[in-house]
Amino acid sequence: MELAWVLDCADPPTLASFWAGALGYTAGPYRQPYLELSDPRGHGPELLLQRVPEPKRGKNRMHVDLRVQDQDTKVERLVELGGRLLRPPFDDTGWWTAHVADPEGNELCVIVPPRP
Amino acid sequence: MELAWVLDCADPPTLASFWAGALGYTAGPYRQPYLELSDPRGHGPELLLQRVPEPKRGKNRMHVDLRVQDQDTKVERLVELGGRLLRPPFDDTGWWTAHVADPEGNELCVIVPPRP
Repeated sequence: MELAWVLDCADPPTLASFWAGALGYTAGPYRQPYLELSDPRGHGPELLLQRVPEPKRGKNRMHVDLRVQDQDTKVERLVELGGRLLRPPFDDTGWWTAHVADPEGNELCVIVPPRP
Repeated sequence: MELAWVLDCADPPTLASFWAGALGYTAGPYRQPYLELSDPRGHGPELLLQRVPEPKRGKNRMHVDLRVQDQDTKVERLVELGGRLLRPPFDDTGWWTAHVADPEGNELCVIVPPRP
C-alpha cells in the first residue's frame, strides 16, 4: 500500500511552486485537474494538487507540519514562495510553532521539536 | 526536515483505532490534546490526531489517498474499523476510486492505480 495526500485548490500551478519549495519536492506536469509533486529522495508520500471549483471554507481539518531545525529560515522561505505568516513562533507544549498559510490560505505549521 | 500531518478531531482515541488500522500505523498514548500514530516500518510521516472543540464543517480541503492492490478488502476493513463507504468504486481517469469516511466523517480515498 502507498500513501498519498491530496490538496484541493483553485490554482495547482501556483500552489505547486509553493509546495515544491516547502517540501523539497519535484512538481510534475499539470494534467488537469491534477498536478503531482513527489519526493526526489523517494521517502515522503506524493502530494497531489487537485483543481476544484469550490473555494476553501474555514480552517482546514487536516494540515501539514514541517519539523525543522532552523525555523526562521524556513518561515522566510515560505513567505518568499508566496506564503503568509499567520502566527509568529510560540511555545506549544514545548514545541516552538509558527503558523503559515500557503498562497490559497491552506494552513501549515513550521515547528522546532523540543530538544531530547 | 521531517513531515507530519495533523488531523483535527473530537475524539482522538476513536480515530486512532481507525487510522492505525487504515495506515498500518502504531498508536501512541493519548496525551491530551494530542495522540500520535507512527509507521512501524519507519517510512511514512507521523499522523498526529489533535482534539479540537469545533466540529468538522464541509468537505475537507486535504485528504489521504490509500493506493492499494485489493480495494474490496481494504474498503471492508475500513468499514469494520468504523468507517463508512461514501461512494463505491468508480473510474476516475483510469484510477479506480472509492470514497470512504472515517468515524468522524473525514474523507479518504481507496484507489487502485492503473496498470502500467
